Amino acid sequence: MKKRVLTGDRPTGKLHIGHLKGSLLNRVKLQDEYEQFILIANIQGLTDNYNNPDKIRNSIEELLCDYYAVGIDFDKSTVYIQSEAPEVHEIFIYLSNFVSIQKILHNPTLKTEIEQKNFEKSTPLGFFIYPIHQAADILLVNADLVPVGRDQAPMIEDCREIARKFNQTYGKKILNEPQPLFGVTVNVPGIDGNAKMGKSLNNAIYLADSEKELREKVFRIKTDPNRIHATDPGTVEGNVVFIYHDLFNPNLDEVNDLKERYKKGKVGDVEVKQKLFEAMNNVLTPIRERRQEAEKIKKQLLERAIEGSRKVSKIGREIADQMKEVMQMKFSRI
Amino acid sequence: MKKRVLTGDRPTGKLHIGHLKGSLLNRVKLQDEYEQFILIANIQGLTDNYNNPDKIRNSIEELLCDYYAVGIDFDKSTVYIQSEAPEVHEIFIYLSNFVSIQKILHNPTLKTEIEQKNFEKSTPLGFFIYPIHQAADILLVNADLVPVGRDQAPMIEDCREIARKFNQTYGKKILNEPQPLFGVTVNVPGIDGNAKMGKSLNNAIYLADSEKELREKVFRIKTDPNRIHATDPGTVEGNVVFIYHDLFNPNLDEVNDLKERYKKGKVGDVEVKQKLFEAMNNVLTPIRERRQEAEKIKKQLLERAIEGSRKVSKIGREIADQMKEVMQMKFSRI
Repeated sequence: MKKRVLTGDRPTGKLHIGHLKGSLLNRVKLQDEYEQFILIANIQGLTDNYNNPDKIRNSIEELLCDYYAVGIDFDKSTVYIQSEAPEVHEIFIYLSNFVSIQKILHNPTLKTEIEQKNFEKSTPLGFFIYPIHQAADILLVNADLVPVGRDQAPMIEDCREIARKFNQTYGKKILNEPQPLFGVTVNVPGIDGNAKMGKSLNNAIYLADSEKELREKVFRIKTDPNRIHATDPGTVEGNVVFIYHDLFNPNLDEVNDLKERYKKGKVGDVEVKQKLFEAMNNVLTPIRERRQEAEKIKKQLLERAIEGSRKVSKIGREIADQMKEVMQMKFSRI
Repeated sequence: MKKRVLTGDRPTGKLHIGHLKGSLLNRVKLQDEYEQFILIANIQGLTDNYNNPDKIRNSIEELLCDYYAVGIDFDKSTVYIQSEAPEVHEIFIYLSNFVSIQKILHNPTLKTEIEQKNFEKSTPLGFFIYPIHQAADILLVNADLVPVGRDQAPMIEDCREIARKFNQTYGKKILNEPQPLFGVTVNVPGIDGNAKMGKSLNNAIYLADSEKELREKVFRIKTDPNRIHATDPGTVEGNVVFIYHDLFNPNLDEVNDLKERYKKGKVGDVEVKQKLFEAMNNVLTPIRERRQEAEKIKKQLLERAIEGSRKVSKIGREIADQMKEVMQMKFSRI
């Protein structure tokens, strides 16, 4: 029997090349090796967008198109929508007796996010509980593995602890203790040099971008700011244009040649960027084409996700019923 | 159309004469005037008893027998079990974006309970969120009225505020703003004189008590501690034996006569208590007899409660779906 993997996204916008390199391509690999579930976390997406539901709603179909475009196979992976498997909310409630609010308040990721969102004085309960709601996502499908970055390891550890406490309290192993699945961490900076790529920063290259948009963005990439003329020697390390070359250009000779000439002041930005554009366009063109295909069938993709949700809902119902059973709260008719 | 009323109990033990006078008899009246829902809050009962599920499980059938005994009519009132209408958990999650953790932390009732339970340093999340989960109980059935004591008015106000915010955010009146229904507050002290009657205080007279237990407890009632001999003048005000006479003895002449003689030191405790026992036994005998009847059919009563839960589950599904609709998270198949 294949092990179960759970991954997913909040539907808060289209996916970009950071997602592609950071997680999407990994999922395309994982779907052959594991029983993969991909969660579209719309209810968690609402926690900090509750007054902007349009954004979440529209992003769901964008996500589905992005998944299809990169090669997520809806037959191999179970793509599902959080709101359509509502057992997660029930399981969340059952888990909530096994974690303290003090522990949640010490979660470093949540702390940082609360500061970023100016939630210090008024933290919406929905936002506050999301780390535990995420644990419920994992336990809903009794996932064996959760692909995460090293920085998210404590989140998985908390989930394991909650599962363990539940099992111990009721004397039966109902919940799986999931393991983190660490991959190679790929951080893709924004075209402005910012370490993070994102919509609000207006520095992202989207999978949905047209060839024209791609070219325009590649030519906007911030390079070495100390290099005024093409004949000035430049720095390659930490230079976004070369980080992208390393990520997208399979022609190592070309990349090394460009780097050498850049360091010596023997190549202009235009040539470096034109070659990057060509390399990226080679990678992104088939994705873009599949994405256009996806746009035409997005109602069907949504239908597949609803079907997936129904499958997850059934799995979740079984888990929730097992939890109720050991809590002695399972009732059956006479 | 009749207005909807929601009342209920946590199944944490048998009901006593405090419940009888404080709420049960009121519910028997309400069921004729309103569409009454009576919630057995087993999941909330677990929040501070999660490691003692036996207690909650066993108390459910005790509650059902108590309800039947006092005259709750399972045809007129919809008795239901919280865990069997799991939509409440989903609605809780949808509401959780509309209240802050700071607001919950300032809830005076919760604050007191956290102190009483020594939860200051480690407050289980499930316990912390119960006031909002209670709001979800109310909104699950879109109750118009909730019978509460004056001290619980802020809880209803919080529920109204959450409902109002939800409706305002999504521009549609989905959730009813419930009103508190204040009755005459009846406080029944324990037989030891403690202002509260409760199992842990070992000072309660239960509806399930036998005649022998009733007599024994009545004769254990703490009277005026300054009155050593039957010939000493005694104090009537605040004297439990007379508080009970006022609550249970319909013979006002007898009560007044006993009070006058007590004040003058012209009656012994034995006579006062014997007359109280007779009065209370008159009230409690039919309840006790119906309770014995209930014990024999408690599987059927449980069945009725499961049926009731199914009805509530349907109502809750509709409300949850309407909430999803305005949050733009309702999906339907092609």
